[in-house]
Amino acid sequence: LRDVVWETRTINKKLHITPIHPNITSVLIVSKPGDEEVEEKVREVIDWLLSLENIVIFIQKSMESVFPKHERIQYWTTLLCTKHSQLFDLVLTLGGDGTVLYTSRLFQRTVPPIMPFAMGTLGFLTHFDINNYKSTIQEICKEMYIHLRTRFECRVMKKKDRTKFINLDNHLSQSLCESDTDTHEFTDSLVVLNEVVIDRGPNTAMSDLMLYVDSKYLTTVKADGLCVSTPTGSTAYSLAAGGSLCHPDISVMIVSPICAHSLSLRPIHVPDSMALHVVVPQDASQSSWISFDGRNRTELLQGDYLTVRISRYPFPTVHSSEEDADWFESIKRTLMWNQN
Amino acid sequence: LRDVVWETRTINKKLHITPIHPNITSVLIVSKPGDEEVEEKVREVIDWLLSLENIVIFIQKSMESVFPKHERIQYWTTLLCTKHSQLFDLVLTLGGDGTVLYTSRLFQRTVPPIMPFAMGTLGFLTHFDINNYKSTIQEICKEMYIHLRTRFECRVMKKKDRTKFINLDNHLSQSLCESDTDTHEFTDSLVVLNEVVIDRGPNTAMSDLMLYVDSKYLTTVKADGLCVSTPTGSTAYSLAAGGSLCHPDISVMIVSPICAHSLSLRPIHVPDSMALHVVVPQDASQSSWISFDGRNRTELLQGDYLTVRISRYPFPTVHSSEEDADWFESIKRTLMWNQN
Amino acid sequence: LRDVVWETRTINKKLHITPIHPNITSVLIVSKPGDEEVEEKVREVIDWLLSLENIVIFIQKSMESVFPKHERIQYWTTLLCTKHSQLFDLVLTLGGDGTVLYTSRLFQRTVPPIMPFAMGTLGFLTHFDINNYKSTIQEICKEMYIHLRTRFECRVMKKKDRTKFINLDNHLSQSLCESDTDTHEFTDSLVVLNEVVIDRGPNTAMSDLMLYVDSKYLTTVKADGLCVSTPTGSTAYSLAAGGSLCHPDISVMIVSPICAHSLSLRPIHVPDSMALHVVVPQDASQSSWISFDGRNRTELLQGDYLTVRISRYPFPTVHSSEEDADWFESIKRTLMWNQN
Amino acid sequence: LRDVVWETRTINKKLHITPIHPNITSVLIVSKPGDEEVEEKVREVIDWLLSLENIVIFIQKSMESVFPKHERIQYWTTLLCTKHSQLFDLVLTLGGDGTVLYTSRLFQRTVPPIMPFAMGTLGFLTHFDINNYKSTIQEICKEMYIHLRTRFECRVMKKKDRTKFINLDNHLSQSLCESDTDTHEFTDSLVVLNEVVIDRGPNTAMSDLMLYVDSKYLTTVKADGLCVSTPTGSTAYSLAAGGSLCHPDISVMIVSPICAHSLSLRPIHVPDSMALHVVVPQDASQSSWISFDGRNRTELLQGDYLTVRISRYPFPTVHSSEEDADWFESIKRTLMWNQN
Repeated sequence: LRDVVWETRTINKKLHITPIHPNITSVLIVSKPGDEEVEEKVREVIDWLLSLENIVIFIQKSMESVFPKHERIQYWTTLLCTKHSQLFDLVLTLGGDGTVLYTSRLFQRTVPPIMPFAMGTLGFLTHFDINNYKSTIQEICKEMYIHLRTRFECRVMKKKDRTKFINLDNHLSQSLCESDTDTHEFTDSLVVLNEVVIDRGPNTAMSDLMLYVDSKYLTTVKADGLCVSTPTGSTAYSLAAGGSLCHPDISVMIVSPICAHSLSLRPIHVPDSMALHVVVPQDASQSSWISFDGRNRTELLQGDYLTVRISRYPFPTVHSSEEDADWFESIKRTLMWNQN
Repeated sequence: LRDVVWETRTINKKLHITPIHPNITSVLIVSKPGDEEVEEKVREVIDWLLSLENIVIFIQKSMESVFPKHERIQYWTTLLCTKHSQLFDLVLTLGGDGTVLYTSRLFQRTVPPIMPFAMGTLGFLTHFDINNYKSTIQEICKEMYIHLRTRFECRVMKKKDRTKFINLDNHLSQSLCESDTDTHEFTDSLVVLNEVVIDRGPNTAMSDLMLYVDSKYLTTVKADGLCVSTPTGSTAYSLAAGGSLCHPDISVMIVSPICAHSLSLRPIHVPDSMALHVVVPQDASQSSWISFDGRNRTELLQGDYLTVRISRYPFPTVHSSEEDADWFESIKRTLMWNQN
Repeated sequence: LRDVVWETRTINKKLHITPIHPNITSVLIVSKPGDEEVEEKVREVIDWLLSLENIVIFIQKSMESVFPKHERIQYWTTLLCTKHSQLFDLVLTLGGDGTVLYTSRLFQRTVPPIMPFAMGTLGFLTHFDINNYKSTIQEICKEMYIHLRTRFECRVMKKKDRTKFINLDNHLSQSLCESDTDTHEFTDSLVVLNEVVIDRGPNTAMSDLMLYVDSKYLTTVKADGLCVSTPTGSTAYSLAAGGSLCHPDISVMIVSPICAHSLSLRPIHVPDSMALHVVVPQDASQSSWISFDGRNRTELLQGDYLTVRISRYPFPTVHSSEEDADWFESIKRTLMWNQN
Repeated sequence: LRDVVWETRTINKKLHITPIHPNITSVLIVSKPGDEEVEEKVREVIDWLLSLENIVIFIQKSMESVFPKHERIQYWTTLLCTKHSQLFDLVLTLGGDGTVLYTSRLFQRTVPPIMPFAMGTLGFLTHFDINNYKSTIQEICKEMYIHLRTRFECRVMKKKDRTKFINLDNHLSQSLCESDTDTHEFTDSLVVLNEVVIDRGPNTAMSDLMLYVDSKYLTTVKADGLCVSTPTGSTAYSLAAGGSLCHPDISVMIVSPICAHSLSLRPIHVPDSMALHVVVPQDASQSSWISFDGRNRTELLQGDYLTVRISRYPFPTVHSSEEDADWFESIKRTLMWNQN
């Protein structure tokens, strides 16, 4: 028994240390819109990529007018990214962490390798310096290391008949919420890279949120809200809510109450093989609001719930070497440790 | 020099230990509306008070139909409370801490002595057990101790011309925001007993809030929001936001960031002789929202600001003895210390 | 690539849901010493076990005089536990969480299945009620579920020549501290179930501790100390130090600074496939002190270090059913959630 | 009633804004010992001070050999500082915050005005830059502002007969611990500027500490220890223990548990007009240890206690202007707010 556990631990470790030698012929570019400086840089990168033979460049359809025309320039749309992600060998993002989160939203299913460039100071997700783009892209085209970052799939389930009281304990343990049920309609599914937050939104009173783990009732959280974060998101909102820093190789969902009324309610780390349900009680005095990676505000009414599970589609970031992928370096740099 | 400081410290201490022998002839009753059980109890209290000679009872105008009629029963309205608070010798509140906060809102200026009864378990503010109302009211009518709880006055200042950029550093140090200025309109003033909160409201992104102390710029808080709490409020929302427990005799404003982005930003205790300004930056990407004691949501647009200062009208709560007024007993009881 | 990760995740999940049908013929008993009530209960359990056929009972050699003699009663010593742990089919512990930690210390290598009974209220580790010992032991003898709890192996490395300054960055990356090196002597190895703590001990000033992850320098922690906790220990000292609650199936080392001087230093969750080194700087103004599961105080002088790695010998606890093993139930019960 | 409170608040505010025009004829110098760079600077300051007419300089007796001899150079000893503090018109400290704390220890009763110079980066207590010493000392000699910082007096009371069990609740409410009592011997009294800490010292187990406020039992703290901090100390160890930042004009004792076992135990702010007792329970399994401003380790055995009260002898620091005394500037600078 013991040996099985021991061995399964070692597989993950090997993943990051095997280099891949890609054949890159198509590059998609995502950039922060409406920023002169970024657009200027994108133009420069496009020019340089066109000078390399055989590479097709995909730029955003809506920015067609901003960038030059060329036979090897094509245009991407949200639909294309969702349906035909295999078209792209590499994605360059130019901006900040927000641009990387936008790219994650773009690819709800399979994600091509992502190479994130920081326009200003390097962030948690943007570890490539745009000033060295030529040398780093050339390196990557020869040999890249892939780091798979866990994403969570979030499903919003809306109660069909609001006048009817449902036994949710039964409901959640039976349906496992795969899709529409007798009582609830599956309205929306979104994948997050950092976190999904359920909070009181415009309400002034604290929210009551019922929390279920693997369909079993855990507790009712009286708080401003609840943050369910990936390890990648542990350096973002989760940290502000009092969560711990969490290495992205750890298989975990970080569930942090936001300003909990009860002092005994602390951040809980749940194995990411489990499913979470967050339910707005049917007799709650107010609704709650979800946001996905800080976007797409959605209202949860009484009896509605959110399901959070690990996504089958992780987010592959590209690194030039093992060291380059080092999470510890990114927190040292960004939290400004060892600077005094 | 040293002796002056030393002596001024001792005055406060004496305040709570001098009993008052009131002559109570008029009692105002505030009760949680729409709760059958509370209404039943109020009826019982009214009957008993009428059995005492010479006492006039004021009940809420809007609940005229709920309670019996009697020549010694009169009706109060919000206007009457605001303008003629001297009419009332004693206020009984029946409900929870929320009912006490409602009563504080009712008396924006001078507040009559407040005797707060808990309908269920005793709270931080409701230290009288409704089951013993006869004996405790009789005791109080003979001899009462008054505890003055600090309240804060909050003023909302709206920018007049949103197209114009103003030098706020100059503005705040000159005007001290007493009333209308060239650039800002004084729209609203509210007194709080627990706390005033400025937060992102329905927005998903963190707020940027500029914080000034005595008209000097302190820092820009990047957070879900900012809670400015009285010592009385230190056991309420402020505690959930990470603040400390604070004895109500301490002259302090507790300024707590809510889920601050920066880890070096911690709750700050400011002398309550100082004035705070919280400004929504003129170039902020979104507005912020205020709530006063968990109510009266108000939007602050770019360039608007909130002023918080100690109110000249504290909130006098009534106690049957020195011990009864003991704040430490209330936190021991409510936080369930020493129970294991 | 993606599928590999996905599949390895599922193995762990299956481990706890496969019942084992043991053949139990020898039972070792560990009990809290010097407690009349516990000894009385142990006597009762021994009598009952002897009434079952074929079971040999091992009790502590030093308590030989306390308990009755019988041909099927034998005596265990620390040496026997270390060398011949395979002699025991089941270990009963009677006491509190401290007795379970003592048992972990007893079996530094392979650990027999542990069945922990609480003498008083159930704890995080003691989930069996002693009042039902007959029925629960009988159940377990028919069918048991095993939960493997991660332990960490801690090695103390003492600098040989204190007058010589060593380049530790080189040293740690080369030697990986398997055993004695040119510069350091391997003095001690201990396995912990909850946590290992390095702190300032009797010193009044904060400690400086250099932290290395996988032989790479992370940061120098200026703090009262550093707590390296297993997930099992996340409900113990680590929680008091500000750490998160962590499900025991998560493969993690929780590294929490204790009262860190720097506000940007927060608990860090490191994959338990990595090795930690905590070094007392060679120019530190004071020594530091280690404790293992709250025992065995050991001094670390300047230039000494501690290595922490996952142990190959986890701690198997016995459960009567899948539900019984539920960690969430234990935190709900012990932190008294949902009780108001 | 209300007006009395209102007016007493305003006195404190005026204290810092009245300049003093001193006549400085004797200057005492305290410097960090054993630091070449500091000694060099002290020599320079002495030379310059001697060039001014009529100023007598006191330097530390034990450093007689380090500094030059001169008819206007005299030597101070600890005894002289304790008994004849009125001899000194001004104290210059050269070093860090530790040197200022040392100076506070030196003057257990009346303290002369303190002018703290930072040798390196400015600290919370050291707000004068040594590089500008000439101009700042000249300014101060013409006009100085005094800021009185609260200090606490700590008394250690040792149980006389350890075999006898005492009713401490009675004892504390009767004696108020002024001096020796029937049961306890007054052994030691020390004044602190930052904090007094009672902790487990070399013990590995948590301490149990009984906390009394104004001779009334509050709670028993199960924790690594307890920190009782002045507002001045709120930026030191208290902050690391989770306390809030506290403006020095607030009349408060900050009582912070260190790594408390119970999550409902949070920092408590107590009016500094109250007295605290921290008692080691008579049946405690281990002793506790005190440290005063991070020094003077003293053991508290079972039944011993510590009394903490505001000292009649505050610590006057010197400032060149109102702005210079601004606490907010010191936290902005030292916590590095607004730097990104």
